[in-house]
Order: sequence, then structure tokens, then C-alpha cells
Amino acid sequence: MQSEPSPASGAKAGAPIELDLHGDVAGLAAALINIESVSGNERVLADAVEAALRAIPWLAVHRDGDAIVARTGLGRKERVVLAGHLDTVPLPTAAGARGTVPISWEGEILYGRGATDMKGGVAVQLALAATLEDPNRDITFIFYDHEEVAAPKSGLGRLLRNSPEMLAGDFAILLEPTNGTVEGGCNGTTRYAVNTHGVAAHSARAWMGTNAIHGAARVLQVLSDYEPRTVAVDGLDYRESLNAVRINGGIAGNVIPDACEVEVNYRFAPDKDIQGADEHVLGLFEGFDVVRTDGAGGARPGLQHPAAASFVAAVGREPKPKFGWTDVARFSELGIPAVNFGPGDPLLAHSDDEHVSRAAIHESLDALRRWLGGESTTSRSAGIAQ
Amino acid sequence: MQSEPSPASGAKAGAPIELDLHGDVAGLAAALINIESVSGNERVLADAVEAALRAIPWLAVHRDGDAIVARTGLGRKERVVLAGHLDTVPLPTAAGARGTVPISWEGEILYGRGATDMKGGVAVQLALAATLEDPNRDITFIFYDHEEVAAPKSGLGRLLRNSPEMLAGDFAILLEPTNGTVEGGCNGTTRYAVNTHGVAAHSARAWMGTNAIHGAARVLQVLSDYEPRTVAVDGLDYRESLNAVRINGGIAGNVIPDACEVEVNYRFAPDKDIQGADEHVLGLFEGFDVVRTDGAGGARPGLQHPAAASFVAAVGREPKPKFGWTDVARFSELGIPAVNFGPGDPLLAHSDDEHVSRAAIHESLDALRRWLGGESTTSRSAGIAQ
Repeated sequence: MQSEPSPASGAKAGAPIELDLHGDVAGLAAALINIESVSGNERVLADAVEAALRAIPWLAVHRDGDAIVARTGLGRKERVVLAGHLDTVPLPTAAGARGTVPISWEGEILYGRGATDMKGGVAVQLALAATLEDPNRDITFIFYDHEEVAAPKSGLGRLLRNSPEMLAGDFAILLEPTNGTVEGGCNGTTRYAVNTHGVAAHSARAWMGTNAIHGAARVLQVLSDYEPRTVAVDGLDYRESLNAVRINGGIAGNVIPDACEVEVNYRFAPDKDIQGADEHVLGLFEGFDVVRTDGAGGARPGLQHPAAASFVAAVGREPKPKFGWTDVARFSELGIPAVNFGPGDPLLAHSDDEHVSRAAIHESLDALRRWLGGESTTSRSAGIAQ
Repeated sequence: MQSEPSPASGAKAGAPIELDLHGDVAGLAAALINIESVSGNERVLADAVEAALRAIPWLAVHRDGDAIVARTGLGRKERVVLAGHLDTVPLPTAAGARGTVPISWEGEILYGRGATDMKGGVAVQLALAATLEDPNRDITFIFYDHEEVAAPKSGLGRLLRNSPEMLAGDFAILLEPTNGTVEGGCNGTTRYAVNTHGVAAHSARAWMGTNAIHGAARVLQVLSDYEPRTVAVDGLDYRESLNAVRINGGIAGNVIPDACEVEVNYRFAPDKDIQGADEHVLGLFEGFDVVRTDGAGGARPGLQHPAAASFVAAVGREPKPKFGWTDVARFSELGIPAVNFGPGDPLLAHSDDEHVSRAAIHESLDALRRWLGGESTTSRSAGIAQ
């Protein structure tokens, strides 16, 4: 196991950290991981990214808070958006967890916070930005802050409010981890509070009251018996689910509870909107007091779009559905087809040992480069174990 | 509505508040209510009670913390224990609640914290102590602290540990509110944590996990379907119950919960001990992870004891079972038959508008006085509306 020194140690106070966009893209990912950027603390990384992008003569750079947009202006027929977030979830606190800053290599595997989600993808974006001087499509690179926290803080959402023209495009790719497969669209998500009501009483005289927790038995039975559907949308199979994520009732060990709340999370295929999700869930819990507390619509995969179809062909793997909600839904709302495509196993995202292989980062870079008409990196990375 | 001035206002600092044990017993109850004695703050009331008892020449007085024992030593064949607690639950905080200190009268109804539970009963004890110079049974009066809080703090338990001889007797009466009816014995109570276990996962990929809240569906169904028994013990019908008093599961809105806990309270007839209760509950939840977290055995009514039978006859009303756990169980453990008998509606105990009628206090006093061979108070209370 090797440990690399923090690049920050060599940087002058105030001056942006220098990033080498022309070396090994996996080494660039390691350098990005070494700049801690937990949500809300993206400034140092954003400064480094901005400085690196401003040094590239064919890109026009725009900054909004800690979000940076860099665009080619070649007058191509199509414009593609390549987007990724700079922030990570908090550093692991467990002793001995490997997902720490600074990073470490185990052979050809890179460990560290953000290795999977999603500094490998950001490194691919930066390498493309620095080397694709003459792509076959115009490209908008977006790097943004506050993805891993509550939606209202999202840097992508802020960009959309402040400078919607910056998000314009015919097709968008989010470089979230997908194991190098195109994952199209995403499921929607809604949450509901299912409340049962009773009458409080001393538990020594329980018959004077009505037990609200017992009243929730049927709610849990409905959930336990529920058989989630798998719905085909634009040729991809979206797997749904309906789950209690929290339950709470009772105030004391000797009081018959007069209230119980079950929080239910519905993940639904993008053939439905939030209203359709509501109808389904309210129907299941007919007769109960149900209130929706949260909701975000899904996104159809949009793979029928010519740009998407040619990208899928360039990747050369069977596309899959995305189950988790991602920012593709924001592009979908703008009418821009969007997919997820990036290095790393999405199941490792947020885990204490998230990691990504050098090979996976190179493969993602190569696929995008092929599609965008650039030279393959294979010659560049000759000699690096794949 | 009348308001009475606090008697404390006329007391010298340091000197015990003077109680008039020879006037109207309901007025004495009002004076007791006016001395705030929320659990842990019984000192001032205990000082007043001790001073009043030490002034009675035929009683030997013993003090332990804020518990006071006063005994006759007449060499009678039987000794009866009359016990009551000095403390109350906290004062109501709701604006406009009437159960405050100082007390108030509405006609012949006395409102205030402790009116029901149980300063009416304590007033009856004190009136008997002051006036029964030559009772047909020896009497031990016990006034104790910390009844309304966790069992280990109980002043009666402390007395039992420090001076067990002080609790000796052939029969015990707790002057807890029973609406002037003899309530025999008490149900036992046990609590259990019924835990379900699952496997955590992101709720976007729920099929990777196992939902522990859904696993609790059958626990709630068992509780919801449960038909509690009514068990005859020594001629009284004890109504049982089994209830979820708390439920808790889940850690976040997007995580499949890996744990859920249902707290179950079983109130069982005194034909069973704690072990019997355990067997019943563990049988109902076979296959689940069940741990008993608390338990107190019940008490058989003991009405077959001659002293109890003669007392029931003196009261002249059909005895009833006591459902809630009370300190009669402590006497029962010592082998001393014990019943509850006192003024006030037990359903009002701890309520913000607890109250007791002047008549109810007099009736309880009269019944005990008749049984113990004293003069009726009817002549004393002539002219007072009943």
C-alpha cells in the first residue's frame, strides 16, 4: 500500500493548487481525492479546477459560487453536456476505514473518499477538456458543488436558476459511477407519512384507550405483502420498491399510544410522475391518514435520441436502467435527454472503502474520447497495467 | 371558585407548618395540597406530618428520610397498617389547568395537585391517627416519599430495607384513590423489547436489503389480534391486557432499516408470577428476539383473611379488583394481605384537573373509623353538605 503526499503541501497559500490534466488520468483522480471537498467545503477544489480550465485556450469559462462551466464554441450541430459534482459525502469516521484523505493505492486500485463518487469521473471530464481541441460535437463541461446534500443547495440547481443558458445542450452525460455502462434515466422517489390515531390511556387500564401502534399493523402488512413491479420504459427495466424507512410511536412505558407514524418511501419507474405515484400509494393505504412529505420525479432514459444511441454504440455495452435518483432528472425536466456513465461501482458510493481501478477510469475516458472524435488514450497509457 | 391563601405564608422559616388534625378532614386535605410535595420535594410536608404526629401522646414515631411511621402499642391481637404516600406527580404546566397549588374549591369539590392521588387519603390517615385513642386493633400509620417515581427510589422500599419491623402487620390498607370501594390485590406488569432484524441498504436498491420494520408486521398483528383474558382470583375478576407502548425503527429517509423495536407491556392477573407472564408472552412471539426489560409481580386480593373480610363488611360495598400496580404488591411479597381503599376517582390520578369531593373524604374516614371501633364523624360533620 502506497501513500501519496498531499499536493496541498506544495501549494502557496492563496494560489490555486495546480492540477496536471495531461498526465495519467488515474493519477489526476488521486490528486483530486487528495483535495478534501466534503459538501460545503468545495472552494479549494473549485479554485484548482477553475485555474486548470482557464489555462485551456479553446474553452470559455464561467464560475458561479463553486460551480464552474467550461464550453467549446465550435459551431457544431450538436452540443453535449458532461457534468459531474466536486463534492463528496463526509469522510469516514470509523477507525481503520480506508476511504480517507490522503488516498492510497493497493496495486492498481485507488482508495479514498470520492474514489467512486465521483472524482474518477471528474478526472475524466478534466482530461477530456484538456485534450479534445477539435471534438465532433460542442462540449459543455459542468463541475458543481453541493450534490450530496439537500436538493435546494445543489450547485446545478443554482446554475439553472442564475444562468439557464449554461445548461443548454442536446444530450447530457453525468459522470456518476456506473461501472462504465450507460445507465439511462432514473427512478422517481416520493415519501409519505402514514399516520394512525388512537386514544391515550394508562396501560393498566388499556381498555379505556385505543392503541395507535396496533392500528399500524395493517400498514406494515400491506408493505410486507407488497410485490414491487418492474416496469419497462424505453426498453430498460426499472425495478420499483415500496418500503417503510422509519416508524415511531409511543411516549412512555405505561401509556397506550394515541399516535404512530410510518414513513414510507416509494421508488417508482419513470413511466409515472409524482401524481401517478401518489395515486398508487394512496390506493394501497386507503382509509389511512397519508400525507406526502417529499417527492422528485424520475427521468425516462431517452436512449432513442440519436446522440444517446451513438454514445451507447461507442461504449459498446448493453445499457442499463439507473435505480437511484440522480441529476439526470434535472436535465430531463429541461427536455434534455441525459444518461449516467462513469467509472466505479455505484454500490460502493458513500461506503467507507469506496475505490476505483485505474483501468476503469481509463476505459471511461477512452469511450468518451472515441465518441467525441478524439484520439484514443491507449497509446498514451501504454505500459500502465489495465 | 374560592382560593385559599398558602398556609406556608404564615409559617416561620424553619419551623414545621402546623396541621390541624381535629378540624374538618377535607379542610385538612386542602391544607396538605397547599404544601407542594412533588416527588423529591417532600421535606416540608414530611416535617409538618412528623410534628403533628409527635404531638399525639399514644403514638411512637419513627422517621427515615422523608418517610414517617407512627404506631400504637396497645397489645391488640391484630395490627393493621394504614399507608399512603406524601408525594405527587409534577404540577400541571398547561395554562389554565386547575390542578395547581394553591388549591381551590368549587362548591364541595376540592381541586389541586394531589387531590385524588392521594392527599385526601393522607388526610384520612392523619385524622384517624389524631382521634383513635383506643382502637380495636393496633395501627401502624406509614407516610412515605417517592412513590410516583422509579421503584428503586420508593420510600416504602427504603423503610423495608432499613427497618423491616416497621412494616409488620396482619393486614395493610393503602389509602390510594378507589372511589371508596375496597380494591383488592393488583395486576402484575412486565415489559419486553421485541426486536426484528434486517439488512441495511440504500432504499433506491431496496432489494439489496431486508426491511426490519416490515418484519415487525406480524408482531403488531399478534398484538392487534390478541384477546386479553379476564381471570378470577380469590373471587375478583382481573382484566389483563397486552399492548405495544412504543415502536421505533429506521435511521434515515433513504435507508432500508436493519432494526425495529416494539416495546410491549403485559398487565397480568395475580394468578401468575413474572415467570408465568414471560412464558405467555414468549409463546406469543415465538421466533422473535424478545427480551424482558422490566417486571413487577402482582398481588392476590387476600380478601379471605378475617381482617380483610371484616373491613369489606364495614365498608359495605362490593369489593373490586385493582388493575394498576400499587404498593400492595410490596406488602403481598412480605406475606401481608393488602388492599387499596381511599377517596377519589382513580381515573383522575395524575390528570390536570384531579379533584375529590368533601363527602368522599368523609365517607372513607367514617368507614375506617367504624371498622377500627371509633366514633362516627357524622355528628362532627353535621351541617356539611354531603
